[in-house]
Amino acid sequence: MAEETPLVDGATRLYGIIGHPIAQVGSPRLFTARFRAAGLNALLLPLHVLPDHFDETLRGIMALANLDGLVVTIPYKPRVVSFVDRALPSAHLIGAINAMRRERDGSWTGDNFDGKGLIRALIGRGHSVAGRRAMLIGAGGAGKAIGFALAEAGAAAVGLFDVDADKAENLHRRISAAFPRCSAEVTPPRADGYDILINATPIGMVDGDGLPAVFPAFDPALLVVDIIIKPELTPLLAHAQACGCQIVGGRAMLEGQADEIMRFFGLLE
Amino acid sequence: MAEETPLVDGATRLYGIIGHPIAQVGSPRLFTARFRAAGLNALLLPLHVLPDHFDETLRGIMALANLDGLVVTIPYKPRVVSFVDRALPSAHLIGAINAMRRERDGSWTGDNFDGKGLIRALIGRGHSVAGRRAMLIGAGGAGKAIGFALAEAGAAAVGLFDVDADKAENLHRRISAAFPRCSAEVTPPRADGYDILINATPIGMVDGDGLPAVFPAFDPALLVVDIIIKPELTPLLAHAQACGCQIVGGRAMLEGQADEIMRFFGLLE
Repeated sequence: MAEETPLVDGATRLYGIIGHPIAQVGSPRLFTARFRAAGLNALLLPLHVLPDHFDETLRGIMALANLDGLVVTIPYKPRVVSFVDRALPSAHLIGAINAMRRERDGSWTGDNFDGKGLIRALIGRGHSVAGRRAMLIGAGGAGKAIGFALAEAGAAAVGLFDVDADKAENLHRRISAAFPRCSAEVTPPRADGYDILINATPIGMVDGDGLPAVFPAFDPALLVVDIIIKPELTPLLAHAQACGCQIVGGRAMLEGQADEIMRFFGLLE
Repeated sequence: MAEETPLVDGATRLYGIIGHPIAQVGSPRLFTARFRAAGLNALLLPLHVLPDHFDETLRGIMALANLDGLVVTIPYKPRVVSFVDRALPSAHLIGAINAMRRERDGSWTGDNFDGKGLIRALIGRGHSVAGRRAMLIGAGGAGKAIGFALAEAGAAAVGLFDVDADKAENLHRRISAAFPRCSAEVTPPRADGYDILINATPIGMVDGDGLPAVFPAFDPALLVVDIIIKPELTPLLAHAQACGCQIVGGRAMLEGQADEIMRFFGLLE
């Protein structure tokens, strides 16, 4: 019988997630379970970095010789960009990093999987993105990442709405510049004429929240996506389900991200 | 049924052991098993700190808001002394720290349990130290800690030998100054006239090693102690066992230390 991987020993390789606050993050449980399922002696730890001590703490963590990679969460995704030796294209576009790894030569590379995780989740569930038209509600941090990822994955069109019109307009310009083959357009929130509707706002997280915008009944052919993790069935997804639409929730995006980040860490084929 | 403590989640409290190299250390497994047995959501991690990056790495680790304590091993025990806000008496005497904790006010306190762990192991096995005469072979880092701990625990006499006569003489002077009621004496290695014989040298670790000194047959009343962890039965302990003596090995000292450090961390009554 093979010996069970020990919980932790001197040879355990370390990964971490940095954020503030930290107690609520799901990555330690999610990644560590995957590491162990893959037979790796590795953990992903919550690393609570305080804003006032950010620079010294991150430098110290990055200097640990048995720490191989970091996941980055709120509020540090933009702030870590100046700490890596190179930011891969998505990170560069978004201006934020959500995973960074140490290379063999000791340098650090950062990338952003906030959008790619969602694309992976969609494709993994049999939904194609290439050639399709997606409506994105919310052009903040997550929305920006998803917008670029949709364009990168070959979406024919991306409709953009944000209550802050400047944010939508800015993302529109940047998607158009980086992905000229994708038709980006700023539009009021709507579902008609689109194949996929994505909520990238926090509306739906809090008890009593309604839909992120006023919608008529959806066409059952519409795929409806919400990036909110809790509750699992947001008001938007409940509405979509009632209309007979297929739905994809935040948990799927999180798992898609974990797959992408595992691969980025070199731990998955 | 009570839910099992998760392996690690966002709320996991962190402890670490810093050293170089790190893969061989036993503390992560030992302490983490104790944390879990006590129902604590906590891990003790191997933290590989490189000598050239010591200061920045340690400062970064100490700034992590969810890290509550550190165990310190070779070669950093003397070096961390300047990083704590206060060194408790044993650490001060020995000039080295092997455990440090964060206080409620954010300051750090260091202590040294290298000797106290052995005393605890002896007492826990029903061997008294107070009023007894102990012969200590080796006055290096571990020997120094054990010498002070024996005197502090009320040993009537401590015989001291080291192949480096200055080390033995120096420890003799310092024990005499700090613990005037303990009769410290520099002596060739011998067992007659002593109740306890302790090997605090590395002799016995390597295959083919003999005894740390030439001894005749031991009196069966002699208690023989070896701080070497691997092999469990050192040549000295094998010789003692053949003479009918009771023996205590390095594993017991390690476990005694873990108890003391758990208490120091505030995790044990």
